[in-house]
Amino acid sequence: MIFTSELRAPAHGYETAADGMAELARQQPGFLGFDSARGDDRVGITVSYWSSLESIRRWKDVLEHREAQAKGREQWYSWYRVRIVEVQREYSFGQEAGR
Amino acid sequence: MIFTSELRAPAHGYETAADGMAELARQQPGFLGFDSARGDDRVGITVSYWSSLESIRRWKDVLEHREAQAKGREQWYSWYRVRIVEVQREYSFGQEAGR
Repeated sequence: MIFTSELRAPAHGYETAADGMAELARQQPGFLGFDSARGDDRVGITVSYWSSLESIRRWKDVLEHREAQAKGREQWYSWYRVRIVEVQREYSFGQEAGR
Repeated sequence: MIFTSELRAPAHGYETAADGMAELARQQPGFLGFDSARGDDRVGITVSYWSSLESIRRWKDVLEHREAQAKGREQWYSWYRVRIVEVQREYSFGQEAGR
């Protein structure tokens, strides 16, 4: 799942909530990992990996996550875009530290 | 296509080359757009959108792009990972400025 967003300025409480959501996601069945980056223009991309479309659907419906989604729309994000994607193939160069 | 990478420090000439590659990508058949973010930890994610797997294959083989890929491995990236993905569905909140 690709989550692209722009944060408002300020976005009070966002960092703490984002850390909490990352921790919560780790506990979900089917969660495989995620990568995240946000630049100085406040545009961020988070890609999370899941074992199935069903596991993504369940994650979307987890109560605490639903509350965070609502707060995101009300307080944190100017806009966001969610793309559900299926990995066709992958290749890499070098070794990610600690992964 | 999802391109996740970590930049070495320093990565001389990277910014200029990245701008050049974005401009070159825009000229390719099948190119639909891209999003990019890189945080203070030097980890970046670029997602580029293409009309077909074939257009991604052709982009990978464009000569100037191949040269940049080689330079990336030699000079700029500690590691990178490429995932070819297919968008299943998407939804959004709010309006991205200038898009």
